[in-house]
Amino acid sequence: MANKSLAKDHGETCVLVTGGAGFIGSHTCVELLNQGYRVVVVDDLSNSSAVALDRVRQITGLAPDDPRLAFYEASILDRDALERIFAEHDIDAIIHFAGFKAVGESVQKPLEYYWNNVAGTLVLCDVARAHDVKNLVFSSSATVYGEPEFIPITEDCPKHDATNPYGQTKSMLEQVLTDLYVGDNEWNVVLLRYFNPIGAHESGLIGEDPKGIPNNLLPYVAQVAVGKLERVGVFGDDYPTPDGTGVRDYIHVVDLARGHVAALDWMGGKVGTGEPRGLGSLAGEPAVDGTRRGVGIFNLGTGKGSSVLDVVHAFERACGRELPYEIKPRRAGDIAENYAACDKARDELGWTAEYDLDRMCADSWRWQSGNPDGYATA
Amino acid sequence: MANKSLAKDHGETCVLVTGGAGFIGSHTCVELLNQGYRVVVVDDLSNSSAVALDRVRQITGLAPDDPRLAFYEASILDRDALERIFAEHDIDAIIHFAGFKAVGESVQKPLEYYWNNVAGTLVLCDVARAHDVKNLVFSSSATVYGEPEFIPITEDCPKHDATNPYGQTKSMLEQVLTDLYVGDNEWNVVLLRYFNPIGAHESGLIGEDPKGIPNNLLPYVAQVAVGKLERVGVFGDDYPTPDGTGVRDYIHVVDLARGHVAALDWMGGKVGTGEPRGLGSLAGEPAVDGTRRGVGIFNLGTGKGSSVLDVVHAFERACGRELPYEIKPRRAGDIAENYAACDKARDELGWTAEYDLDRMCADSWRWQSGNPDGYATA
Repeated sequence: MANKSLAKDHGETCVLVTGGAGFIGSHTCVELLNQGYRVVVVDDLSNSSAVALDRVRQITGLAPDDPRLAFYEASILDRDALERIFAEHDIDAIIHFAGFKAVGESVQKPLEYYWNNVAGTLVLCDVARAHDVKNLVFSSSATVYGEPEFIPITEDCPKHDATNPYGQTKSMLEQVLTDLYVGDNEWNVVLLRYFNPIGAHESGLIGEDPKGIPNNLLPYVAQVAVGKLERVGVFGDDYPTPDGTGVRDYIHVVDLARGHVAALDWMGGKVGTGEPRGLGSLAGEPAVDGTRRGVGIFNLGTGKGSSVLDVVHAFERACGRELPYEIKPRRAGDIAENYAACDKARDELGWTAEYDLDRMCADSWRWQSGNPDGYATA
Repeated sequence: MANKSLAKDHGETCVLVTGGAGFIGSHTCVELLNQGYRVVVVDDLSNSSAVALDRVRQITGLAPDDPRLAFYEASILDRDALERIFAEHDIDAIIHFAGFKAVGESVQKPLEYYWNNVAGTLVLCDVARAHDVKNLVFSSSATVYGEPEFIPITEDCPKHDATNPYGQTKSMLEQVLTDLYVGDNEWNVVLLRYFNPIGAHESGLIGEDPKGIPNNLLPYVAQVAVGKLERVGVFGDDYPTPDGTGVRDYIHVVDLARGHVAALDWMGGKVGTGEPRGLGSLAGEPAVDGTRRGVGIFNLGTGKGSSVLDVVHAFERACGRELPYEIKPRRAGDIAENYAACDKARDELGWTAEYDLDRMCADSWRWQSGNPDGYATA
């Protein structure tokens, strides 16, 4: 029933990053390495590229054989592979990104999404528990709020059913991880509810690399800018928002990645107070060794809403040319407006998003123009 | 993308019953066999006994080697075993009971419950789909209503978070199975929300056989009656109910079992109308071959509430002696009153519960007194 302590120095702390070759995962690896953490990545490369990890080494100045970054090509559903990883590394904590993430595809392939995301997480937790690793940061999403009851969305805004299996897996896994703590108070869980991560590392070496036609606005806009797609589709211009297009809370992926490092420091008692966790969290007392227990829930956003047209225009400024767009009908399930209250992360994690929309678009453009075909360009 | 037809005769229809050696499963096997269905049971016997299936054969007059009832000792998580079963039998439909069901234990062992119940169902559906078997009746529970918004509870009463992982698995699996149909309209799913199944087959040969101290009222009362336990604990006598004790909708397990047969007939277009499904169901048009498509949701209860003391007194009448009980404090999470609206099952399935509380207790007593140690008595 023990759990690894996170009270030690970063350099002595080994973090398993599942899905570490993905968009948010690779940026988080950079920030972890910058902060001195040791990193082990497990990724099945089903929707990512090992080139991303070469780039992470390049950005952080690590030689290919530097033991501070290890990589295993494996699925989190592969129990034997996970056992081997836990046997070969003294893992202290897990940041769990691995999962399918395409909303539309999840409607077509629900069984695959539930299996990969939910069953995969169960295997991961089971193996981790057997190795006394009960510190886990989970990649959740603002999608758990469904159509939010109020805006800005605080962490105690009631959860609502997501309209697709992808969103359901996030919501179910929040429940599973909360129940883990209820059943065994050694668990130290943080649920990070992301708003809309965009942008790229300022080096232009890592960024979002979706397979096929992008599902999300930013990579779509970026591919229009680079000439791979003809025009941006804007779904609805008659929402009750300043310019009629949907408003979202876009957050720079580097800010988001730093939120994960802040969460780890907080879990280790290095930041924040010993006060009970507020707003939706399940309070756990800090243990004697400084490692917290409980379930902490934090929104990671900027607290600022931007419309679809705001994004298009910011990207136009970034790439220096006009981007054609076309107004299309609203999409089922889309809501008018959605942005985060970020006070809790600021007050408890000591974390705030730093970069604005222009910076997000500038960094995204640097990545996209330097890698028009993503990592396949390499 | 095909699905097996259920339009043929019972005698040509083969039903896979997961958890078929359990309490509800074994009674359902009897009713299926009585109606001429061919039955294949898969059960890992983790919380049941193969003796139950010997008794099913005894009740239905089948010789041990009669091919109308086959049994495989395997977990639904065992993909290879399921593949073998689907290869060896021409399965047409599944009635899916297999799952852990102890509320308190689920709080202590959430990972085991989510793995066994949720991941197990995903494996089952994946293998079934590969064999074009997309007719599935799921063993859900009134627990998905949480604290119900109104009583009697109709099928469109909003779902609320269960307070324990057992209940969460039921709710999550309803979502998963609904999403299966949304992604592939060949699926033909019925979610049966049970109220409180008690009683036993009138033969006294099969019944509820909980391991250890029973969690539910009826087997507890029965074990007091048989002298194995000292007195019944009544949790709370100050609820706003006629006698102050909690009111539930108890249903005879044979009635419940017949509800499953009715659901199969309905799925095959043999009963009910072609009208869109009402109250919470997801409408699917009947296909040309008579096999329905969609998600049908039905409460299975009696529509009548009985208090804890009603049950104790009915059991006293059944066993012919006074049963000692003790009033204890309310339990966290218990609600005052809970009973079903059963109009939908009556109108669409043509099914109604027949047996009253006295009959339930009389049958339960016959089973308990004849088998004081359950199947271990044999």
